[in-house]
Amino acid sequence: MSTIIDVPETSRLIGKERTVPRPGGWKKGIAIMDFILRLGAIASALGAAATMATSDETLPFFTQFLQFEASYDSFSTFQFFVIVMAFVGGYLVLSLPFSIVTIIRPHAAGPRLFLIILDTVFLTLATSSGAAGAAIVYLAHNGNQDSNWLAICNQFGDFCQQISGAVVASFVAVVLLVLLIVLSAVALPNHQITHN
Amino acid sequence: MSTIIDVPETSRLIGKERTVPRPGGWKKGIAIMDFILRLGAIASALGAAATMATSDETLPFFTQFLQFEASYDSFSTFQFFVIVMAFVGGYLVLSLPFSIVTIIRPHAAGPRLFLIILDTVFLTLATSSGAAGAAIVYLAHNGNQDSNWLAICNQFGDFCQQISGAVVASFVAVVLLVLLIVLSAVALPNHQITHN
Repeated sequence: MSTIIDVPETSRLIGKERTVPRPGGWKKGIAIMDFILRLGAIASALGAAATMATSDETLPFFTQFLQFEASYDSFSTFQFFVIVMAFVGGYLVLSLPFSIVTIIRPHAAGPRLFLIILDTVFLTLATSSGAAGAAIVYLAHNGNQDSNWLAICNQFGDFCQQISGAVVASFVAVVLLVLLIVLSAVALPNHQITHN
Repeated sequence: MSTIIDVPETSRLIGKERTVPRPGGWKKGIAIMDFILRLGAIASALGAAATMATSDETLPFFTQFLQFEASYDSFSTFQFFVIVMAFVGGYLVLSLPFSIVTIIRPHAAGPRLFLIILDTVFLTLATSSGAAGAAIVYLAHNGNQDSNWLAICNQFGDFCQQISGAVVASFVAVVLLVLLIVLSAVALPNHQITHN
């Protein structure tokens, strides 16, 4: 059976575009924003790791038995921080190709899903190291009276500034990772029912 | 200009079926699993908050000036922990209706998207409080030589066991939240291109 349909030149063009789920330039925009935010997250994660790893202060006086030195590897929490933030930075670098794939193919669900799942795992890692670092930084600044832990920031001012900076950078990375997950989640469904 | 297009009866029917997303009973299964995991996460989050909030130990000896008491509110990190875990538990209870909506309507992207975004935010909160708590628990157990912070768990054994348990419960909640996000993300796209 054949039907005659009147198809003007312009509407045929539109019809062809409609077979693709949605024109959705906004998905491409989200993919590009994902890429840019990922670059920012790489910078802050690696910056946090580097700042923490180079924190080291030796006081200009010493006794016969003790030399007063504070370094990130005095605290196992900060060692964990350096390792995890370097790891997160490395993952984010390796995730860039997948982000580029979502720019080229904004409607493919696979790469986005892959990124959401791994981003969630690494968000958890980054948050845990950042928060653990923040807890120790808080103790270093304020101490704790009840357990008789004295603040060390009076003596080691530069060291404290550096570890605080590293923790702040890690929280920037965490916020960017949350944004990455939210953006990917918004772009994931095909919005056949709800969108417009 | 008009064009003749040959449209057989059968292919028109197939074309119509293709517009409906998918039967997908597996999405309903994921939604039910989401609900169950959410109940587990509620239990562990509220359990963590309650365990931490009731931690309190007074030693059976005291001097003229000091009574030796350890309680969660000696440590601002643990206060943060209790508040955040209670908050996360409250959110998870309030999210149950949305989880039920995804069971009833497994193909609706809206509620799932809403849950993914809020789950991510509360995952970050839960992870940060759990990790900060873990950092302090580690210090309480091991102390830190370089900053002259002594381990307090020798004196306050029961207190330390209780705060350690609370931190472990918070990490259970974190793992369940990660699973919730991954499950929702897997069920979110309509899989027009990749599925089957």
